[in-house]
Amino acid sequence: MLAMPTTEAKWSSTEENIAQSAFDAAFHRETRSMVAEAKRQAELSATPEDLWALNDFLSARRHYLDGKYDFHHESLVFVLAQLAKEGWLELSELDGLSADKIAKIRVLTLM
Amino acid sequence: MLAMPTTEAKWSSTEENIAQSAFDAAFHRETRSMVAEAKRQAELSATPEDLWALNDFLSARRHYLDGKYDFHHESLVFVLAQLAKEGWLELSELDGLSADKIAKIRVLTLM
Repeated sequence: MLAMPTTEAKWSSTEENIAQSAFDAAFHRETRSMVAEAKRQAELSATPEDLWALNDFLSARRHYLDGKYDFHHESLVFVLAQLAKEGWLELSELDGLSADKIAKIRVLTLM
Repeated sequence: MLAMPTTEAKWSSTEENIAQSAFDAAFHRETRSMVAEAKRQAELSATPEDLWALNDFLSARRHYLDGKYDFHHESLVFVLAQLAKEGWLELSELDGLSADKIAKIRVLTLM
């Protein structure tokens, strides 16, 4: 993911709602997938070492998701592009955002 | 558990082997119970918050077990007494230890 934030973007309240919904949907999909993976790991666990591996997996995901799902205007096009690139979000879910935001997000998904 | 270690205890190699076996058996029982509990929690998990609770549970157990299963002569009668008291160990598994060690462990389990 790119680290440089866009600073000039303005978001209408309609755009904000669209982005928030897309964001929430992506978070739900990504964490549902994590829950399934954690259940699978737990089911296969037999030893303390297996559980410590699960513990490490959960700690890492928690930290990663905490940093990733950052709903701030400055970083939003980057986060949305990352989510689309990773498959947690369809670009069509962003219909209603301004053409320049969509264009930026689309370009970022190709990087 | 008492914090003050015995300093005067001498352990023969036979006693050391008996203690080590009892220690390993208790560790196996306690961690088997933890694995079952973690599997149960994972199975009931549906949300990220459920997984963070599992993450916290595993982190706490890991830290606790790390500190508890300390096989050093100075603390061994205390650890063995604690394990017996918690039900992870039968006193009969310590048959072969000197009478004074058994007596100390027995008294400690009553505290």
